Amino acid sequence: MATLHIGNVKTEEMSGDPGLLTRDQLVLAGCAAERALWFARDGDVVVLPAAPGEAFVEHVTRTTGVRAASLRIVVPPAGRAGAPVLTADRLADERLHAELRAALDGRAPDRVQAYYPDAAVVALAGALGAAHAVPGHAFLAQGGAAAANSKALFRAVAAGIGIPVAPGETAAGPAAAAAAVARHFAAGHPVILKRELQSAGEGNEIVSPHAGVAPLGAERVTVLDAAAVRAHLEERWPWLTDGGRGRLVVERYLPGVRPVYAEYLVTGAGVEHTGEGELLMAPVLDGVVVPVPDLAPDARAELLRLTRRLCEAYRAIGYRGTMSVDGLVTPGGDVLLNETNSRLSGATHLHDVIARAAGPGRTLLDRGGWAVPSFAAAARRLAATGRAFDPSTRTGTLLTCDFTRLDGTVGYCVVAAGIDAVRHEEAEVRGLFAPAARS
Amino acid sequence: MATLHIGNVKTEEMSGDPGLLTRDQLVLAGCAAERALWFARDGDVVVLPAAPGEAFVEHVTRTTGVRAASLRIVVPPAGRAGAPVLTADRLADERLHAELRAALDGRAPDRVQAYYPDAAVVALAGALGAAHAVPGHAFLAQGGAAAANSKALFRAVAAGIGIPVAPGETAAGPAAAAAAVARHFAAGHPVILKRELQSAGEGNEIVSPHAGVAPLGAERVTVLDAAAVRAHLEERWPWLTDGGRGRLVVERYLPGVRPVYAEYLVTGAGVEHTGEGELLMAPVLDGVVVPVPDLAPDARAELLRLTRRLCEAYRAIGYRGTMSVDGLVTPGGDVLLNETNSRLSGATHLHDVIARAAGPGRTLLDRGGWAVPSFAAAARRLAATGRAFDPSTRTGTLLTCDFTRLDGTVGYCVVAAGIDAVRHEEAEVRGLFAPAARS
Repeated sequence: MATLHIGNVKTEEMSGDPGLLTRDQLVLAGCAAERALWFARDGDVVVLPAAPGEAFVEHVTRTTGVRAASLRIVVPPAGRAGAPVLTADRLADERLHAELRAALDGRAPDRVQAYYPDAAVVALAGALGAAHAVPGHAFLAQGGAAAANSKALFRAVAAGIGIPVAPGETAAGPAAAAAAVARHFAAGHPVILKRELQSAGEGNEIVSPHAGVAPLGAERVTVLDAAAVRAHLEERWPWLTDGGRGRLVVERYLPGVRPVYAEYLVTGAGVEHTGEGELLMAPVLDGVVVPVPDLAPDARAELLRLTRRLCEAYRAIGYRGTMSVDGLVTPGGDVLLNETNSRLSGATHLHDVIARAAGPGRTLLDRGGWAVPSFAAAARRLAATGRAFDPSTRTGTLLTCDFTRLDGTVGYCVVAAGIDAVRHEEAEVRGLFAPAARS
Repeated sequence: MATLHIGNVKTEEMSGDPGLLTRDQLVLAGCAAERALWFARDGDVVVLPAAPGEAFVEHVTRTTGVRAASLRIVVPPAGRAGAPVLTADRLADERLHAELRAALDGRAPDRVQAYYPDAAVVALAGALGAAHAVPGHAFLAQGGAAAANSKALFRAVAAGIGIPVAPGETAAGPAAAAAAVARHFAAGHPVILKRELQSAGEGNEIVSPHAGVAPLGAERVTVLDAAAVRAHLEERWPWLTDGGRGRLVVERYLPGVRPVYAEYLVTGAGVEHTGEGELLMAPVLDGVVVPVPDLAPDARAELLRLTRRLCEAYRAIGYRGTMSVDGLVTPGGDVLLNETNSRLSGATHLHDVIARAAGPGRTLLDRGGWAVPSFAAAARRLAATGRAFDPSTRTGTLLTCDFTRLDGTVGYCVVAAGIDAVRHEEAEVRGLFAPAARS
């Protein structure tokens, strides 16, 4: 009864040519891939781009109650983008298949859970005699993940089933995109351009006819003269479309909205809600709060109604697996949907594992960027100061991701009773290794 | 109560850059666009790429009982591909909008029926204050037609809902496509490569590891050494993907299958079957027979069951309008589905107009390529020889399309009791202008 976990964050299909990503983006993705360990149970096999740190494995398994020695962590040889991420060529490597067969003692896995369930995942499962162990494998083997993650198809499906989205359109070429931007600019609106496939806001760009727009969901705002729009789009087109592939989403940029999401597990039996939260953007994805603090009950009900309806539509065409559907709450309390992530999200480990340990009445804040001497030192310090997560009080801080090899930071999840307590505790935790001058 | 008909056959979205099509392909599409006249009722407005011949308008309207003088046929100024087809720039032309407002006496059309319902059609309807008159306009305005016509998405959806398709996959780049072809070649199978968007087999290419494969659904078969596959795909990639856009379908080519289709109208209320037929390929689409001659009842039931199920899936994501779903009947009587055409088809005028006049117990064969002195001469000759369609006997021949400006031929539909009578009558009709040496 082993599950095969595959930490393929930022595959080519999900994020485009790895050659267009920075080394830091790739290493960050590789670290995020290690969240797969949160889902592992005794005897599972985990494919990761690089060997995780021992302290991280120990922290996760101690929290989840898994015998670390029972896990098999398999790292395939480096591929076309090197070692930071699990590109398709690494999943296809015969040497990986042989290692997995050995790790599985020749048995086929009962279940395959990949971060991004593309055709390469189904092919790997097939090589192990277990294509059927990937939920929705027939859909996914035909490139279904690209469709189910497409921000362009999302707009058509949402509009088609009557779900409100930001005013906008999709464009197949720079001329059509420029005409669309011009229409928004003429009405005085900034515009967010979204690559059909990417993640965490890294495929987005905001363009504005005027200064003073704060970016949210993209790295920066480019102020453009109306006359310069066409040339800008021509120049940016390869980046905006991953080398000319796919359609570009052109949407009115809505300032002042609050980004939220609801997450589901889509199965043959139906659509199961697993949780929802707020996306913290600074200006791109920086963290998650579960549940959304102070969300009006009407807005929450609308968010859940619309996101479930969207999941039902994708379920009707054959998608199976996790769907994390992003929405926006306007200052007036209206809910729009924004995109769908038909893969594990940066919050799936919260909903499927940590929120269950935290139980009712708890707020979770998961964020990165805590600079620490080492992962082990951070874990020790939490324990020594009584700030580590304690199952008996169901409060405290867990270390959810190990970014130390990227930039000496860790990701953490603070669990407390309500957002104020969470924010207070977060500040305390982030002060644990404060510079001497501040202590 | 006017309907606006738009004869936009082979738009950029449907068929790729018109610069990659031959002049003959474009003119052929422009002639086929005139089939829109078959759907016109008194007072309707028809947008066509070029002015249709008077004899054709007279023949169609006399058959449909429409007052020709009540129709307004509007031809917009030439566009980026010239005058043969209705490219998006022609539909966006303000001069067209002004002419349409005049033709509609300032009223918005009650219904808009386009051959290919892309965002340019919705924008045109919107300019006339009637976006809502396009069925499924919200889905289509967001590029939904590209999704609903995608041969790549079709494979994912069909597989996802358990519909049998030819063994194969979709590929995002030449390396993946070459690997897929190599797998089929290694098993001794030829392969059909299909552009994500195109029509009438014009985006398909068959490659085979051995000679002796008869092409069906593509212009020709290219015999390739296994070692030459990668180079061939690299070289052909721009054509196979319309300049790098979209995914390529790579399928085992199945010799000896019979191409069929079933057609539906997908509405908010449900999925309505409008007919089915056989696709005559020589080697690309050459004609249609309605209904499929001698189709085993089990195979017909399976064709209708599978195609309806597919339509329901696209309905669930918001598509509305005509869907013509292609299938294949194997020599053993099994049914596979092949692609979906979410637009009017080359048979919609048969199902929605001519089959109703023909009534029960009739077989229809619609084909092009009858060389005639002129459209009017062909109509006169049919009448003079008693071979014109006669509503009282519900037999005889109609002229369904005017290709005379392309190559001096017309399209015709023979109506008779059964396929043998139809084929006999077709031979008689095609002999009406036989060369003197044969008479």
